[in-house]
Amino acid sequence: MGRSWWGWGTTEDALSRSDADDLAATVAQLLPGADLTAHEPPEPRSIAVPASRVEAPASLAHLCSDDHVDRLAHAHGQAFRDVVRALLGQVEHVPDLVARPRSEEDVVALLDWCSEAGIAVVPFGGGTSVVGGVEPRFDHDAGAVSLDLRTMSRVLEVDDTSQSALIEAGVLGPALEAQLRPHGHTLRFYPQSFEFSTLGGWIATRAGGHFATGSTHIDDLVESIRTVTPSGTMESRRLPGSGAGPSPDRLILGSEGALGIVTRAWMRIRERPRWRAAATVSFADEAAGVRAVRAITQSGLQPANCRFLDATEATINAGASSAILVLGFESADHPLEPWMERAVEICRDQGGVLAEPPRYTGSADAVARSGASDAWRSAFLRMPYQRDALAARSMIVETFETACTWDRYDELRAAVTTAAEAAMRSLGLPGVVTCRFTHVYPDGPAPYFGIYAAGTWGSTVEQWDEIKAAVSEAINTAGGTITHHHAVGRDHRPWYDRQRPDLFAAALAGAKRELDPAGILNPGILLG
Amino acid sequence: MGRSWWGWGTTEDALSRSDADDLAATVAQLLPGADLTAHEPPEPRSIAVPASRVEAPASLAHLCSDDHVDRLAHAHGQAFRDVVRALLGQVEHVPDLVARPRSEEDVVALLDWCSEAGIAVVPFGGGTSVVGGVEPRFDHDAGAVSLDLRTMSRVLEVDDTSQSALIEAGVLGPALEAQLRPHGHTLRFYPQSFEFSTLGGWIATRAGGHFATGSTHIDDLVESIRTVTPSGTMESRRLPGSGAGPSPDRLILGSEGALGIVTRAWMRIRERPRWRAAATVSFADEAAGVRAVRAITQSGLQPANCRFLDATEATINAGASSAILVLGFESADHPLEPWMERAVEICRDQGGVLAEPPRYTGSADAVARSGASDAWRSAFLRMPYQRDALAARSMIVETFETACTWDRYDELRAAVTTAAEAAMRSLGLPGVVTCRFTHVYPDGPAPYFGIYAAGTWGSTVEQWDEIKAAVSEAINTAGGTITHHHAVGRDHRPWYDRQRPDLFAAALAGAKRELDPAGILNPGILLG
Repeated sequence: MGRSWWGWGTTEDALSRSDADDLAATVAQLLPGADLTAHEPPEPRSIAVPASRVEAPASLAHLCSDDHVDRLAHAHGQAFRDVVRALLGQVEHVPDLVARPRSEEDVVALLDWCSEAGIAVVPFGGGTSVVGGVEPRFDHDAGAVSLDLRTMSRVLEVDDTSQSALIEAGVLGPALEAQLRPHGHTLRFYPQSFEFSTLGGWIATRAGGHFATGSTHIDDLVESIRTVTPSGTMESRRLPGSGAGPSPDRLILGSEGALGIVTRAWMRIRERPRWRAAATVSFADEAAGVRAVRAITQSGLQPANCRFLDATEATINAGASSAILVLGFESADHPLEPWMERAVEICRDQGGVLAEPPRYTGSADAVARSGASDAWRSAFLRMPYQRDALAARSMIVETFETACTWDRYDELRAAVTTAAEAAMRSLGLPGVVTCRFTHVYPDGPAPYFGIYAAGTWGSTVEQWDEIKAAVSEAINTAGGTITHHHAVGRDHRPWYDRQRPDLFAAALAGAKRELDPAGILNPGILLG
Repeated sequence: MGRSWWGWGTTEDALSRSDADDLAATVAQLLPGADLTAHEPPEPRSIAVPASRVEAPASLAHLCSDDHVDRLAHAHGQAFRDVVRALLGQVEHVPDLVARPRSEEDVVALLDWCSEAGIAVVPFGGGTSVVGGVEPRFDHDAGAVSLDLRTMSRVLEVDDTSQSALIEAGVLGPALEAQLRPHGHTLRFYPQSFEFSTLGGWIATRAGGHFATGSTHIDDLVESIRTVTPSGTMESRRLPGSGAGPSPDRLILGSEGALGIVTRAWMRIRERPRWRAAATVSFADEAAGVRAVRAITQSGLQPANCRFLDATEATINAGASSAILVLGFESADHPLEPWMERAVEICRDQGGVLAEPPRYTGSADAVARSGASDAWRSAFLRMPYQRDALAARSMIVETFETACTWDRYDELRAAVTTAAEAAMRSLGLPGVVTCRFTHVYPDGPAPYFGIYAAGTWGSTVEQWDEIKAAVSEAINTAGGTITHHHAVGRDHRPWYDRQRPDLFAAALAGAKRELDPAGILNPGILLG
């Protein structure tokens, strides 16, 4: 299967013309009058790309490619604005070379070369960044190399006793799971990009995972990290917990390729779940639903799934007519009736009504996945393909996310929605804003917003950028984080800089000077 | 009540002479022939203290004390080696002044003065460091000020909705809980030092808390931190979760006063528990008990208590005759029978026998603590007083702790025990080594070792130092961490330096140069 050079995933899995037409017809009902003419991506070889400024030394030439389409495919991530610019043939920041190390020794050799020659290095995992994290959007006279780690994709060691595995950073989600499955284990980390993103990318961006509650950020699953920097290699000790000074791993988690290249990590894995429980609760009163979610997160029950969809989101993506809460528990150890029953009771206390009563599957022998959960997962993974089909029809379809404490949520939600609607109105674009919770904590939710607006072909990037700036301002002012699990990249820098304590920026710069003295690693990311 | 200038806690709560004699009699049975003559602490004013090299400016004089006993009491922590040296009158590293800021403005003013004058600053919370963290054990010509934060002890704000509270760093455990109680909330963080240690100290040392599993390190309970550094003040945003760059809080957590002074923090609090379940399981085969604990940590049940005591530890501290596992669950939300029943089943699968069958207490109305749990807690908090009484009778009574992955545990345990026994043998000291788990993770335990040996009066510090060096070598070689929750301080530096990646040390030094350019903060801690 071929990865698309411009859009999500593989060309084979993209929406067929008839599926795209069906989707467009649905959207036309929601936004009557929208111009949904389909636009085709340009032939990549028709897009002008500047001559490469970089020539690899003979010893590394076999790892490097200056192929036109290869360079184009490494020139952007997978944000809406990336996909649309590619559709328009506007690919302006193209790496001079794509390098594919096969081993850590190759990474060291490539970094040594680039350090010495002052060439910028952009670490590239699956290329699914939605924040401009892999786009060489900087001026660097000596040129830029995109360091694509996907060739380093092995599970090197599985420790069944400690439920940990040593995994190369370039592995994609499915290949990672396929290698753990014979051991009966799973990382159980399913970002929406699962099929096309890598372990190293998840670590570098502090990605958010499968579980809606509890230990779910990739941060929690890391036992130790090995990182190659221009100053040398560093590896933390494998430890289940430690109080020995500030955590070395936590400096690398979220460093987005600006401090080093993650080459491998020991990850906490787990047994594949045997029992599952699922239920859906609907709430006529959205505020009551939010209270129920809060009570569940503060109850200690830790459901695997606790996704709350507002009425608009529920209508569009779940065929419901009011806000719903999708509840799920899973376990490799025990049946889940008491957990689910108490969670449902909490919902009822807040006026929730069972839309789908609890279903229990599994036994001590069952490891199979339920059909319903399969269907949801499949739909979830299809969403970016739908986004691409709509983006090619002038739609502005994008998401943004944050997290805030519960006391600030109502205000943040209102401010963000108002800002998005005002921005669409001032642009003259009909559209809707949806909201769901992807992750919830005892002290606050991670709201995830969706925008569906009918844009103007040729201007949708600028239109989206205006909307995005407005909602980012609202998030920042209302006390949210500019990103809960999409990372900072280049697109979030202005708001990240305001959210981050200045002295922490200084400390980070002090650390970077030690690890990357020439400043070649992902210029413009986090610092500078 | 008066804090002891030399030993644990308050003079009023120290063991009475007759209680100490009873304890000595018990020890004599365990270690026949030991010389258990009681030695009295010296009169503090008889201990020579060099004249203070530091004079506070007039504007800060009201915050500073150069009182002889005050300076002595800030010259050491509460490790066995600290207590014994004080008993012997060997107090060699005395701060020139003790400063007691009443507000953050005071902290800023004191740091400004010390920065300008090049005076070293040792942040002092409760002074319960067991690793030399608060002892001014360094040469610094301009002198050293001990910055005692205990006057800053208020809970400033409680957010009942988000279950968070803004708390000043100098508050001791009991005063913190007393201020949360009217809100029905608790931090539920009970290190053994609870009565005499501070929130700021817990954060600076990455202390380990009440819960044996799950989110229990103070790291997990921090929502945001405010830190004063010589370069200015930095405060992270209150967030339940964030993926925006490396976590600013995680740089401060574990910084042990070397990067800044924590002045306040938003902490995750919780409702006081209403339901409790407790049981004790005994294991004739210790290895089977370890397997049961591992299975429980990997089950997702997350017991509040899961303390496994080896046979020696169980004999000395629990009157049992084989290894035991003390299991407990607690909840503010729901009864706990299904949780406890499954945990007991896991134990039975490994050959465990119920020594005390499950007891369930509580109801939706009950918030009271059970008598049994009170008794255990009280005994736990008494242990350091017993340690002092035995230390004054030539006993070497000390603990050390680590964490490692499960696959390495058997080897680490054997290596540590062998090293301790060999060291005692070569010193000619009869003694025993005990082991329990204080915290357990899906990927490994945090073993906590105890040493009880009959030492030689006047030489017990050197004798302990030899044993400690031997076990620290064993821990380091076997892949453990030099500390799971006691911190690094000055005593653990040689092994910390070997455990920590060199490049992380460089990055940390780069960060410190930005935050503490004159290098006045706790010299010798983590770096230098």
